Amino acid sequence: MNQNDERYRRGVEILQRLSGNGAEQVTNRVAEVAPDFARMTIEFPFGDLYARGEIDLRTREIAAIAALAALGRLPQLRVHVGAALNIGCRREEIVEVLMQTAIYAGFPPALNALAECHDLLATSADTDQVKP
Amino acid sequence: MNQNDERYRRGVEILQRLSGNGAEQVTNRVAEVAPDFARMTIEFPFGDLYARGEIDLRTREIAAIAALAALGRLPQLRVHVGAALNIGCRREEIVEVLMQTAIYAGFPPALNALAECHDLLATSADTDQVKP
Amino acid sequence: MNQNDERYRRGVEILQRLSGNGAEQVTNRVAEVAPDFARMTIEFPFGDLYARGEIDLRTREIAAIAALAALGRLPQLRVHVGAALNIGCRREEIVEVLMQTAIYAGFPPALNALAECHDLLATSADTDQVKP
Amino acid sequence: MNQNDERYRRGVEILQRLSGNGAEQVTNRVAEVAPDFARMTIEFPFGDLYARGEIDLRTREIAAIAALAALGRLPQLRVHVGAALNIGCRREEIVEVLMQTAIYAGFPPALNALAECHDLLATSADTDQVKP
Amino acid sequence: MNQNDERYRRGVEILQRLSGNGAEQVTNRVAEVAPDFARMTIEFPFGDLYARGEIDLRTREIAAIAALAALGRLPQLRVHVGAALNIGCRREEIVEVLMQTAIYAGFPPALNALAECHDLLATSADTDQVKP
Amino acid sequence: MNQNDERYRRGVEILQRLSGNGAEQVTNRVAEVAPDFARMTIEFPFGDLYARGEIDLRTREIAAIAALAALGRLPQLRVHVGAALNIGCRREEIVEVLMQTAIYAGFPPALNALAECHDLLATSADTDQVKP
Repeated sequence: MNQNDERYRRGVEILQRLSGNGAEQVTNRVAEVAPDFARMTIEFPFGDLYARGEIDLRTREIAAIAALAALGRLPQLRVHVGAALNIGCRREEIVEVLMQTAIYAGFPPALNALAECHDLLATSADTDQVKP
Repeated sequence: MNQNDERYRRGVEILQRLSGNGAEQVTNRVAEVAPDFARMTIEFPFGDLYARGEIDLRTREIAAIAALAALGRLPQLRVHVGAALNIGCRREEIVEVLMQTAIYAGFPPALNALAECHDLLATSADTDQVKP
Repeated sequence: MNQNDERYRRGVEILQRLSGNGAEQVTNRVAEVAPDFARMTIEFPFGDLYARGEIDLRTREIAAIAALAALGRLPQLRVHVGAALNIGCRREEIVEVLMQTAIYAGFPPALNALAECHDLLATSADTDQVKP
Repeated sequence: MNQNDERYRRGVEILQRLSGNGAEQVTNRVAEVAPDFARMTIEFPFGDLYARGEIDLRTREIAAIAALAALGRLPQLRVHVGAALNIGCRREEIVEVLMQTAIYAGFPPALNALAECHDLLATSADTDQVKP
Repeated sequence: MNQNDERYRRGVEILQRLSGNGAEQVTNRVAEVAPDFARMTIEFPFGDLYARGEIDLRTREIAAIAALAALGRLPQLRVHVGAALNIGCRREEIVEVLMQTAIYAGFPPALNALAECHDLLATSADTDQVKP
Repeated sequence: MNQNDERYRRGVEILQRLSGNGAEQVTNRVAEVAPDFARMTIEFPFGDLYARGEIDLRTREIAAIAALAALGRLPQLRVHVGAALNIGCRREEIVEVLMQTAIYAGFPPALNALAECHDLLATSADTDQVKP
């Protein structure tokens, strides 16, 4: 197995821990027009960067959500909010990170991010609302 | 009544002058996942900033439309174009501010802004076209 | 014929070489609310800039696609990918320029660009996949 | 005199009302590498758009300042803050528009804009501080 | 003490835990032209948002650094990298978050962020290099 | 030699064709705080993407310059304008691509790009000006 196969295998393994199928759906569609790029999207971000041990996956997902919300990249934000929930982040934590977007990028991207991920984050908010 | 309630009350009062229900619809949906943030979205932008006397609401809406069009924040742009019309800005003025976006942010955000607000701005444009 | 009519005429001529009707559809809708701006959108970008002889239309479209993908301006990107194909760019070249977006603006805009133009670029990708 | 000369002449006339020499300094430097673009920078933004009668120069400068601050285009923001002061905008109004940037684009661009234009806006702020 | 004074006091307390004087220097300069905005910059981001208990300050700083690096807001990034170090983040963690910027916003903002914070992050990198 | 060494070697080879030392200077400084990232900056953009045969280096540099100017990433733009000149692009072509930035991202990034690369592009502009 050469080194690139190794990077790809590592990336797929991490992606499977992060997401059920959200990421795959995006990649599958892109793979039809740019198969090499679909492969690179797994190799570099996940096989190279996410695979490094310096910080845990939870910290990586907090950073991913903060960056994607600030930039207004909604389809990818949605995938990473799902991933964060999958690896054990609480809904309240994610909502809090999205709220903080207002400081750095303004209220519109914070509101758009919360609206985009409404269904993923809604249950916890309901419990939130009945807090005394 | 504590100071935060006062900020909220002032914000709601200004929002009611600005918009019928557009802003509320966005805020309502966000309130389901982040009720405190929905409150902050009224307190800080409207209760703190818009409530200041230094410039009038018309100037604030011109600035809001110019910034939101330049940044490509279309859902919020739509709300503020509606607000500008509600407080008496003429359609021709708003079209002109959106056209000027081309200078600072390029033709695509100017075109996208005009397309997004087509129905809000259309009537005046029709009259525009029959000008001698 | 005055100079502005000349700029407009030159712009229309270039637009016709670039695109069947994609650009017109966008411009037509905008023309209903801002007829003068629809005219300027032809005069300045196409009548003034594209009409200059220093670089050919292929180079202009490569630059347009790279800039629009990096900025995430998807409706305009789509129009210019269609234009690039019309003037003879190969699908593989365009895919390659879109992939390169990942370096300068990150993976999300590259993925969004490839997904947006999937149908315009798909055939070549299929052939790509069966390459030995 | 042909139509392009007319557009240029109109643009120069408006620029002279807006600014002493700030804009010229930028344009002069650019004119050394791209003389035609320096000319276009006067023709299209000022000769075509600013010259239209629909809104006054004060409204145009409010929109320019709001857009440039939101986008973080500091050299051009500085030129337009100077222009706004030249045509009679009060320092307090400009400060207020820059503060409002925090809503739409976040606190960093608002802070950077106020810091960039510190010397242009400082006197009024001083008087502001001694208000009872 | 009214509610706004309470928000300000809470914000100052958090800022003091986060940073020695970096933030104050920026705020002081802005306070000369927009004293009310300098106060709001403490009240809303720190007194309202950072003061909430849902996530700890370390998570807030990871999110801040990720968002500011992605947006290329270098002066504020520098302040928050300093703050993250002050509250106990390791240099290796911060470097890793900045590297991850390349995925979401491209290599240039990642490189610019690492260059901007070179002196704050250098010591650990040196030790990094002598790792076996 | 493993596959990653091969990617790195390919990347260095391409970088040497593109640039004398501009890119190295940036990378060297970053290498002091994030040595692995400096390596990745050569492996992925140059070793993986630029090394692909589908389009030539000239087309890649046109796309790089268009994207970097539109995004306002000035340090990297400068490096790539130097690279484009090294591999035989004419100054007039590069100026033209930078001018076109005004269409897609507005006049400020076009002006800032031309000002940033003034010394690299100046000679040709001078000859330009004396054209009959």
